[in-house]
Amino acid sequence: MNMPLNAAVAGHTRLYAIIGDPIAQARSPLVFNEIFQRMGANAVLVPMQIPVAALATAIAGLKAVGNLDGIVITVPHKIAMTGLVDRLGPAAQKVGAINCMRRDETGGWVGEMFDGEGFVRGLRAHGHDPRGMSVFQAGAGGAGKAVAHALAGAGVKSLKLIDVDSAKQQALLAELAHAYPSLRVASGSAEPCDVDLVVNATPCGRASTDPLPFSLERLATNTLVADIIMKPEKTRLLLRAEERGQKTQPGRYMLENQAEIVAEFFGLRQK
Amino acid sequence: MNMPLNAAVAGHTRLYAIIGDPIAQARSPLVFNEIFQRMGANAVLVPMQIPVAALATAIAGLKAVGNLDGIVITVPHKIAMTGLVDRLGPAAQKVGAINCMRRDETGGWVGEMFDGEGFVRGLRAHGHDPRGMSVFQAGAGGAGKAVAHALAGAGVKSLKLIDVDSAKQQALLAELAHAYPSLRVASGSAEPCDVDLVVNATPCGRASTDPLPFSLERLATNTLVADIIMKPEKTRLLLRAEERGQKTQPGRYMLENQAEIVAEFFGLRQK
Repeated sequence: MNMPLNAAVAGHTRLYAIIGDPIAQARSPLVFNEIFQRMGANAVLVPMQIPVAALATAIAGLKAVGNLDGIVITVPHKIAMTGLVDRLGPAAQKVGAINCMRRDETGGWVGEMFDGEGFVRGLRAHGHDPRGMSVFQAGAGGAGKAVAHALAGAGVKSLKLIDVDSAKQQALLAELAHAYPSLRVASGSAEPCDVDLVVNATPCGRASTDPLPFSLERLATNTLVADIIMKPEKTRLLLRAEERGQKTQPGRYMLENQAEIVAEFFGLRQK
Repeated sequence: MNMPLNAAVAGHTRLYAIIGDPIAQARSPLVFNEIFQRMGANAVLVPMQIPVAALATAIAGLKAVGNLDGIVITVPHKIAMTGLVDRLGPAAQKVGAINCMRRDETGGWVGEMFDGEGFVRGLRAHGHDPRGMSVFQAGAGGAGKAVAHALAGAGVKSLKLIDVDSAKQQALLAELAHAYPSLRVASGSAEPCDVDLVVNATPCGRASTDPLPFSLERLATNTLVADIIMKPEKTRLLLRAEERGQKTQPGRYMLENQAEIVAEFFGLRQK
């Protein structure tokens, strides 16, 4: 997918960045620059590798760059960055994490979280309306919160959750129960069964030596298996699901189905 | 010269910036990205508009970006930036200004000044060896210092200098007299005559309403008239010189003839 990009970066080009650590694996530069080009926007999105210890210093510096209009935020900065913007959008307030920020009309910065909406749009775009589904999800961190809130908002019937950090797991279950009274929420087990959709929202699977985040062995073969990991595109979880004859959704669908709404959030429009 | 650039900016792309205020007029992104592409380097140089008041904050932030390997510095930051790097190269020490900086082997930053060398290379590339020339120059700021030192180092016979700031003018004359004992240095007048080369190293001429930085009326028609202003490419000074039938050198020669050595300074090599 390393498509060439016909971009003339000039002095008047507007600047966007994606920050994370590591960053070399990020697909956002290719995806966003393709969108910017299609929109006819004189803009470029560049990768910036920023370590956790330097985050506040780096962000103070980037805010001082006058032609830098927006930042995409990836692992491990999505939660910490909520403290480095002036205002949070509605999804970011629910999730407690942001994956993008832009200058607002007053020169301050507003952060918002589109991972969940991207994930749900990815499901719908491939024929899987989440309304009424029973769901199992692993992961209650920043991405996990975003996906769970978006699934709840899209009308899933029930959600079972696991996380290696049981405090995080309980906190997210309590939040969901409070925010969506008609949703059935419960702790899950690492051997899910009797659900329509299983989601890996943990980082487990990025390394080829990682164990599976949960077992697929008790699932019916018509259960959809989704992963939010971008690289590798086919995690061990997805490969195992394919072996079992199950439908799968790779992580890139979440990114690809949110990039256009993030570009709009950045204030860019088709010319 | 707005050539399209076929660059795929991806997650593993190395990052370079040019900082200045304003920055929209900067030609460096086009020039450097064309060189990076020709070298086969997976690298992009992007413009960053940074106001004087935010310079230290912005630079602290940019130094925290792990994949940002070098910065080109333009007006008005060339002098102030000497205080924000860890070490100065030999030309930068003479001039007291830098126009680029890169990470060194220890993770610190070294700054160097290539404007003067670029200017002299531009003369030579167009058949004008400065050795033995008598020169008149307007401007004793950062760029003026760089050009004067490089001309002196290239063996010009004499240098007459003017600047609206007479303290700057006297200081640069004293520096040159000390560093190049065989060079004849003197204050000039705004109506130069009897020289082989006249140089505008002031910002006067960027705006179409600017007066000429000095008069051409007393010059012989074989005197070469050089400007270091990039935009407009043909300043009023150069247009007037052309009307008089004189040879001219536009500011872009200085940039074009230093970009390859700056790319090498950045550690990039032809693949």
